[in-house]
Parts: sequence; C-alpha cells; structure tokens
Amino acid sequence: MIDNSFIELSSNQNQNIKRVRKLKRKKYRDEFQEFILEGIQIIEAAINMSGNIKEVYISEEVHKQENIERIIDLFDERADKYLLEAELFAEISETVNSQGILAVAEMKTCSLDNLIDLEGPILLLAGLQDPGNAGTLIRSASAAGFAGIIALKGTVDIYNPKVIRASMGGIFDLELIKNVDIKDLNKKFINSKRRMIFAEPGAAKPYYDFVFKENDILTIGNEARGLSNEIYELEHESISIPIKGNIESLNAAMAGTILIFEMVRSF
Amino acid sequence: MIDNSFIELSSNQNQNIKRVRKLKRKKYRDEFQEFILEGIQIIEAAINMSGNIKEVYISEEVHKQENIERIIDLFDERADKYLLEAELFAEISETVNSQGILAVAEMKTCSLDNLIDLEGPILLLAGLQDPGNAGTLIRSASAAGFAGIIALKGTVDIYNPKVIRASMGGIFDLELIKNVDIKDLNKKFINSKRRMIFAEPGAAKPYYDFVFKENDILTIGNEARGLSNEIYELEHESISIPIKGNIESLNAAMAGTILIFEMVRSF
Repeated sequence: MIDNSFIELSSNQNQNIKRVRKLKRKKYRDEFQEFILEGIQIIEAAINMSGNIKEVYISEEVHKQENIERIIDLFDERADKYLLEAELFAEISETVNSQGILAVAEMKTCSLDNLIDLEGPILLLAGLQDPGNAGTLIRSASAAGFAGIIALKGTVDIYNPKVIRASMGGIFDLELIKNVDIKDLNKKFINSKRRMIFAEPGAAKPYYDFVFKENDILTIGNEARGLSNEIYELEHESISIPIKGNIESLNAAMAGTILIFEMVRSF
Repeated sequence: MIDNSFIELSSNQNQNIKRVRKLKRKKYRDEFQEFILEGIQIIEAAINMSGNIKEVYISEEVHKQENIERIIDLFDERADKYLLEAELFAEISETVNSQGILAVAEMKTCSLDNLIDLEGPILLLAGLQDPGNAGTLIRSASAAGFAGIIALKGTVDIYNPKVIRASMGGIFDLELIKNVDIKDLNKKFINSKRRMIFAEPGAAKPYYDFVFKENDILTIGNEARGLSNEIYELEHESISIPIKGNIESLNAAMAGTILIFEMVRSF
C-alpha cells in the first residue's frame, strides 16, 4: 500500500533520479555496485531470493494496480520507497511498456577464491555478447543448481537490465563474479579441484559420451567467434553437441543449457 | 552483382511494394502463402537449404557492399530482383538496423497426413506465444534432425519475421504445418505410430528416466499457461525437467531444447 513511507519526487534534478539514470550505464553500475530491476516479475523474484533491494520507484500512474500493491507489501522496511509522476518515471524507465515499478539493488560480491572453493559446477561466460543469451544461461544454471557464474572481461555486463530480466531471478540465486581477467582465473584454477570443459562445435567427443564431474567449469564462448586463443591455452577438455540437421549450429544459450542439464543429471 | 536483371523501383504505390508491406501481417501471409526474409544470414540460410525465394529487394544505399554482392550472386534466375531507393526500402523493412536486403519466399506446404507418416520425431508447438522461443525451438529441432513441426491454432505464426530470424534457417530444413486444429490432430494421431509426450513442470517422471521412441511427438505449451485442457485430453505421457535451484522454471525454449536433444541422443 502506498502510505506515508513513500517519498514523492517530482524533479528530474533530484539526486536519486540522477543516480538511477546513471545506473543505465555499466561504468556507473560498477562504480556504485548497484543495478536496476524493472518490472513486477523480476522484482518479485529478487525479493523471494533475498536480493538486496535498496530503493523502489513507483509511477503515480500505476500505483493503485492490485499487483503493484501486492509487491509493495513485500518490501522490507530498509528499502526506501519513492512515488514519481508518470513523466518522471518515464525518464528512469528502460522498457517501452513499463509496468511502472523499478528497483535499485546492490550487487553481491564474491571473490574468485571463494567461488572456486564452493562445491558444485560453475558456468564460465567467456566473451558472450548477447544479453538475452547471458541471462538465459544464468537462468538455466540456477535451475540446474549450479554453484556460481564467472564472467570474463569482454563478456556482456551481467548486471545489464536485459541480462537481469532474462535471468528471471537466477542472478540472485547464484554466486557471481564479473570482469574476471583470464590470467587471474588461470592462477586460481591451477591446483584447484576444478576441470575446464569447453563447448566447441568441432570437438570430437560428443557430450553424451563425456563423464562430467561435480566441480567442472562449463565454458561458453562468444556467439560468433567462440573461444579466444588465450582461453584456449588453459588446460581443458573439449566436447561437442552433434548436429544432425542441415543447420549450422545451435544458439549459444541452447547449447549451454543442454550441457548445463547434462552435467547435473548424474549428480 | 547489380546488373540489368535488376528492376529499379521508386514509388511506394508499386504493386510489389504494396504486397511486401502486406506480408508484415499474418492475414496476408496466409492469403498469399508467402513470407518475408530480412537480413544476409537468414537469406543465405534459405538459399543453402533450397528455400523457394521468389523476389529479392536491395536498398540502393548498400548494394555495393561486398557481402550483399556475394549473396546476390547466389540467387537463381527465377528470383525477381529489385533495386530500391533507401527511403522506399525503409518502408518495407522491419528491422531497425537493416542490412538493406529483404526477400519474399513461398511457404512450403505439407499435409498433416504426410507429416504424421514421416519417420523421425516431431515437435508440436501448442500455444507458444513468443516468436523468439518458437524460432529457437525450430532451430533446435532442425539441429537435432527432427522430421517436422506442427503448430496448433493459437500458436505464434511460424512465418512471423522474428520466428524466421530466430530459426536461423531451420524453417527451411523441416516439414512444417501451421494453424492445425486440435481435433484434426486427434483424428490423425489415433492409429498412428506416434506417441504424444508432454513437457510439464509438475510431472512425476524426470526426462532422463523416460525411454523415448523415434516417432514421438514432443509437445511444448504456452509460456505462462502451459497446455490447454483440450490438448490434455489426448492420450499422452508426461515428463518433467527437475529444477534444483530456487528459480521457478526454465524458459520454454530451453526446456524444449533439452528434451529435443534428449530424444535424439539414443537414435
């Protein structure tokens, strides 16, 4: 319910409004360690998965909708709540048909050491560029019970709003680390219990003949270029998904999801 | 190469231009039994998979690009070729950053009888609404060597440009039939060699414990509502993909792709 715990904002010169607008850019997301959630479904998922929501912004135009009121009741008292005129809300919104609700959440931080030490498989995003693909893979890894996600430098920002949306809350369910340098990964990886598994269209070994282990790291490369030479030099096992039709390849998110579920079926 | 086999068009009152514009709507795609392909990658895939391309439209602005010239050389003589002023091309284009090439292709027709009689698995799209999901599933089914696709009434049009694009040519690689009435399907299906397999989040049997047969029909329902009661009344086997994380569900295209590849791994 909208009550006096809501602060009304009407100026686009307000400091909060300015900051939310900045969060549309990766540079400021990294600087503030915060990101935007937009829409009922993803905000509800964040609450259910104990995502750390700092602020919520509601458009005056929609605040009496039943499903918005239901969500507002879910926020704990630590979240600051703001009510915005419709025009002002439009300035911070990134979606065309906005549902009139947007939240700012804090990034979880996890060190590479901690992530490598966890039990369970890890998904390594190595240069993936499409936010829908990255988000979908995070959703699949979460559904499969993976331990975490590592995103290498040069991968789409996993806090990009489109990634967040496609992850359907998976972003809050997993340990994450981004902007990882391949050299640091190499150092941690040596002497660790983890093997690197590369998904490669041309690899001789089909995925269904490969015996996965519980702490394997599944690596998915760039949609067009695959894996870089630098990654290639890491010790690894290569597997492929055999293609039986005339089509050239699978979508990266599809290929990744097939392998993610293959990895966990035996555990 | 652009040569005198190209007809220059400059008026938006030209009959071809009017017809291409109409093909943006399902109603006219069904009436003319034609659809639009836009972009180099999908047009090239269509040519490679013997898609029946009737007409090609090139924007004057881009016709000297090397990759456009390469594609033009691939068209056979039966395709009518048109060169359009940039503004006129923009009127028929549906993409924001158009590559300046668009083609009109004829739908392949396949009867339900013929499709049911083929050998190999079939994908049944039963109320799926998102064009990206439908196209991705067609791509996955093609990559897995499926025999065909059946789209029930109430499913997104499989000749929608976004479906075509996401299918990456899969639409030309498979036998397809759309607008199928569930009652007709039921009649054909009785006494056929085919079993109906329903993917359902709540089903007791996990997909990896299920023994698929080569002529099974994999059925994927609506993203939000799943399968309708009418479909439910058909004789079927239900399987699920167990979810191990806190996330509610998999994306429909992901779930479908996991099952598509599970079906063919043993054949």
